[in-house]
Amino acid sequence: MSEIADRIKVIAFDVFGTVVDWHGSVAREVAEMKLDADPDEFALAWRAGYQPAMAEVMRKGEWVILDDLHRRILDRILQDFKLDDMRETQRRHLNRVWHRLDPWPDSVEGLTRLKSRYIVCSLSNGNIGLLTDMAKHAGLPWDCILSAENFNKYKPHPDTYRGVARTFAAEPAEVMLAAAHHGDLEAARNCGLETAYIERPWEYGRGQAKKVAPWDANSLHATSIVDLAEQLGC
Amino acid sequence: MSEIADRIKVIAFDVFGTVVDWHGSVAREVAEMKLDADPDEFALAWRAGYQPAMAEVMRKGEWVILDDLHRRILDRILQDFKLDDMRETQRRHLNRVWHRLDPWPDSVEGLTRLKSRYIVCSLSNGNIGLLTDMAKHAGLPWDCILSAENFNKYKPHPDTYRGVARTFAAEPAEVMLAAAHHGDLEAARNCGLETAYIERPWEYGRGQAKKVAPWDANSLHATSIVDLAEQLGC
Repeated sequence: MSEIADRIKVIAFDVFGTVVDWHGSVAREVAEMKLDADPDEFALAWRAGYQPAMAEVMRKGEWVILDDLHRRILDRILQDFKLDDMRETQRRHLNRVWHRLDPWPDSVEGLTRLKSRYIVCSLSNGNIGLLTDMAKHAGLPWDCILSAENFNKYKPHPDTYRGVARTFAAEPAEVMLAAAHHGDLEAARNCGLETAYIERPWEYGRGQAKKVAPWDANSLHATSIVDLAEQLGC
Repeated sequence: MSEIADRIKVIAFDVFGTVVDWHGSVAREVAEMKLDADPDEFALAWRAGYQPAMAEVMRKGEWVILDDLHRRILDRILQDFKLDDMRETQRRHLNRVWHRLDPWPDSVEGLTRLKSRYIVCSLSNGNIGLLTDMAKHAGLPWDCILSAENFNKYKPHPDTYRGVARTFAAEPAEVMLAAAHHGDLEAARNCGLETAYIERPWEYGRGQAKKVAPWDANSLHATSIVDLAEQLGC
């Protein structure tokens, strides 16, 4: 453990679900807008379009930033929810809810403590502008914002994980990915990165607890970002 | 003036010379290493290789990060200064002096005040890893680090200035470049950005005061970053 703490130089964080509560934040804004839709279901439907939209971008070999993918999905689910009379200005405002996501209660303290010893950056499929607005909104003290947009590839493409190491002139084994998703961590591990799983049982809302059991393959397993900081002696 | 303050959303800063004192920092480390060279002349010679090296990269259409260009120049000037017996580990350490540059006395306060109202980012020819290390060293509170490396083009290529606007989904007129170099500002202005000149008379050391006279073409002229914050009501 302390061997890992001494070796790594950079901790890259997945953001949606790991650092910020997308479900709670999206559902709350949907509720505040008094849309004729169940906020929980609306948030889940929007997020459900996320992986397929990125996979399509990667398959086509084009590059489209996440703000634009979020908008395509939004337009489709507004139809599904029979809300397609929503005006353009309201659609634009709602689409930017992803720039206004709130952090989990431990995120700011955990990142701040980890910064004392490591380079702490994002590695998110969110575009740079989105992540910058979110950092200002949520007070996330990134040393550096890295995004799929830096590499023109979405996670789990290897270029993204290797790109973090290359950006900081580090070996892959000197970089740790921290995420609440085992698939993301597995892809990072396959590129030689260390991995830390962060438990986020309420990522999909209070209606359904996510399984947060440890996988042996991960280097570390933490109940929160503050717990990760504790484990790394920060 | 207040019309500009209301219109702009993003302030992008040139870094070397504008936010940090490259000459003083490089000369100090050279002096501390007890190299048999005049620290002032060594710093000036290193920096003198900077523009030609970037111009060559742009001419060849390749992409080479600034850390590698700094190293090429360093190896050459070590010959010129008859210091080519310097060992590899020492060369590597010295080359990273550009990651350890100190801020001008007003930089941290000025950036912090501007952040309260604007997105404050770098737009530097330094690579992302260099700028991240520098921000940690100097306490620079960037909302986002943007670099020539984001665009695979060195300033003054138009893609860099337009790239800042595109990254934040802003119009060019909603972005201001702040720099201590009229040429950088001129190139930004030609892309439709607002411009703020920052006086840094001692950029090249105490031995030679740089002319810091205003150019009418710039939107604003400031004696420091704190003065810029004042002028923008921050």
